Amino acid sequence: MNNFKIKQLFDYDTWTYTYLLWNKSSKNCIIIDPVLEQVDRDINLINKLKLNLLYVFETHVHADHITGASSLKKITNAKICYGSKTGVNGADILFEDGHQINLDNDNITVIHTPGHTGGCVSYYIKGSIFTGDTLFIEGTGRTDFQEGSSSDIYDSIKNKIFLYPDNTIVYPCHNYSGFLNSTIGHERKFNPNVGDEIKKNIFLENEKKKNRPYPKKFDIAVPANLKCGKV
Amino acid sequence: MNNFKIKQLFDYDTWTYTYLLWNKSSKNCIIIDPVLEQVDRDINLINKLKLNLLYVFETHVHADHITGASSLKKITNAKICYGSKTGVNGADILFEDGHQINLDNDNITVIHTPGHTGGCVSYYIKGSIFTGDTLFIEGTGRTDFQEGSSSDIYDSIKNKIFLYPDNTIVYPCHNYSGFLNSTIGHERKFNPNVGDEIKKNIFLENEKKKNRPYPKKFDIAVPANLKCGKV
Repeated sequence: MNNFKIKQLFDYDTWTYTYLLWNKSSKNCIIIDPVLEQVDRDINLINKLKLNLLYVFETHVHADHITGASSLKKITNAKICYGSKTGVNGADILFEDGHQINLDNDNITVIHTPGHTGGCVSYYIKGSIFTGDTLFIEGTGRTDFQEGSSSDIYDSIKNKIFLYPDNTIVYPCHNYSGFLNSTIGHERKFNPNVGDEIKKNIFLENEKKKNRPYPKKFDIAVPANLKCGKV
Repeated sequence: MNNFKIKQLFDYDTWTYTYLLWNKSSKNCIIIDPVLEQVDRDINLINKLKLNLLYVFETHVHADHITGASSLKKITNAKICYGSKTGVNGADILFEDGHQINLDNDNITVIHTPGHTGGCVSYYIKGSIFTGDTLFIEGTGRTDFQEGSSSDIYDSIKNKIFLYPDNTIVYPCHNYSGFLNSTIGHERKFNPNVGDEIKKNIFLENEKKKNRPYPKKFDIAVPANLKCGKV
């Protein structure tokens, strides 16, 4: 019997996806990339499902919203987890590349996937990969701040994320076109930035040409998230 | 092998969920409740997946957005399908309550679920039910226009939709809190309007007290949708 459940949640203001992962039998659960303004909704759902929140996993130090991590920890005593290269203060666990962590019988692998930020990680569990702002649905995260590196994001996706099978479900941190998830196979075929046919020099040249606006919540979100969203 | 696939899509402007259903082997597919402004996106996706769009299913005559049905038909020759009580002009198939239609080996049941509008239908296929604006996630559709009836929506949900097993996945036409889907079991337990503990007289009294704003696109959307979205 498949006891492992995933619920995708959405924040309409910042277009952020949050994920609740749990084991139906033990009720142990993990939340990935919660949003501060949605903490009440998330706690309400956790309570309704009678879940026991063990961990808050962050994919990176977000620049577009403040994490709900610290607020969730206050209420549930969950442990806050970040990649070790994020430079955050106040996390309970700092994941190294390749770190393994269990949700009951199911194994989660932490993959250091720098490029959008220096400390970005992705999480793989049971046929699904949570790619944060590294790999988007037919897109890739911007690389122009927070130790961003076009070279690194290309390598992270091509040499780490794309090693997973084609039918692996890709759950990103955002989408702006109304898509909820993708697969590795779809991204290898159709991703205009990093699909199989796109060589690294082309990607790097295209990234250089991009002129992206300053993220509107940057000056508030980044300092707060470097303290795990303590507000 | 499970060849039946569902992809949920979202329109950010009107908070509408559209669903693409297909058989992975035959590539035959159905779209439920497409949005006019997203037709390019949807066609692009259909082409990428090499799908053969057979039918456009509508759950009802929408008041908040114009359907993409006629535009999709023009491009793909798909048949436009509505419930027979909708009063639309130009549909190819008008479903009666209990109508059965196949997507290859999988059977779809059309359920007449009046209440939000007189002609609303829900669609059940393989453990999933597409409830339109009849049953929402922890909510119900408004009943104050288009032959809406509080008595009918209560009966439709309690006596038709809630007959499906608790683990049936509920896919609604909208959500305004960042939830994507639910289950019959969750709604029976937690729906504040029509959960198991809510008697009909209480629901009817509560509906009377609701003072909802006039839908902003009503005067454009309803006439267009009564012609299957011909614009």
